[in-house]
Amino acid sequence: MANRDIIHAIAFNADGLVPAIAQQHDSGEVLMVAWMNADAVEKTLNTGQICYWSRSRQALWRKGESSGQTQRLIEMRLDCDADTLLLLVDQTGVACHTGRHNCFFRAVRGGELVTIAKVETDPKELYGE
Amino acid sequence: MANRDIIHAIAFNADGLVPAIAQQHDSGEVLMVAWMNADAVEKTLNTGQICYWSRSRQALWRKGESSGQTQRLIEMRLDCDADTLLLLVDQTGVACHTGRHNCFFRAVRGGELVTIAKVETDPKELYGE
Repeated sequence: MANRDIIHAIAFNADGLVPAIAQQHDSGEVLMVAWMNADAVEKTLNTGQICYWSRSRQALWRKGESSGQTQRLIEMRLDCDADTLLLLVDQTGVACHTGRHNCFFRAVRGGELVTIAKVETDPKELYGE
Repeated sequence: MANRDIIHAIAFNADGLVPAIAQQHDSGEVLMVAWMNADAVEKTLNTGQICYWSRSRQALWRKGESSGQTQRLIEMRLDCDADTLLLLVDQTGVACHTGRHNCFFRAVRGGELVTIAKVETDPKELYGE
């Protein structure tokens, strides 16, 4: 595996991070955006399970490690500037920590921010009390 | 219009920027990712035409101003942390400066980066010689 070559091709920012969009591979739904460092990219490619870098916890974060809502990698893509990743994934359950299916649940409609998606799973079920 | 309230809801980073994903509204194709500052968000909401902030040129950049490949705003969405925008757009022509329909034309397949989309429009046609 030439994971090293792939990682070398990525233009990480000054903090060593690259934004990664997770998109449901079959429906096209944009689920979430998070960040990866080189270790997260490598772990994702090696395991086939999406692993991000948590900027708040400053630690690798295997998606679903707490909630069980994992993301299986279908395909990793790189944009023209090599500074953004698109992850085609298969999402188990809900992607958003609020219990919604994706994180983009607020829309600008009629000049206001409107919540357009319902909570599908109680966050208490995902993370405990 | 409560554009000011919407802009206040966005968590811009230390540089005053927020990443914005442009997604073709009907097909679900992820076209590109670029950055917006508050002025770009306001101009986009006011005109209905996508306007980004060019980090390289340090200037507002109305998508398509050079190439004619504009993006019409269908809906702007905000994620749970308010630090990423999802723009549902109607793309005219190709989104990528390489002349491909979207910027994510390299995929990791068989351990290598493979180009998976063809150039649809010669960049010389888009930007001149």
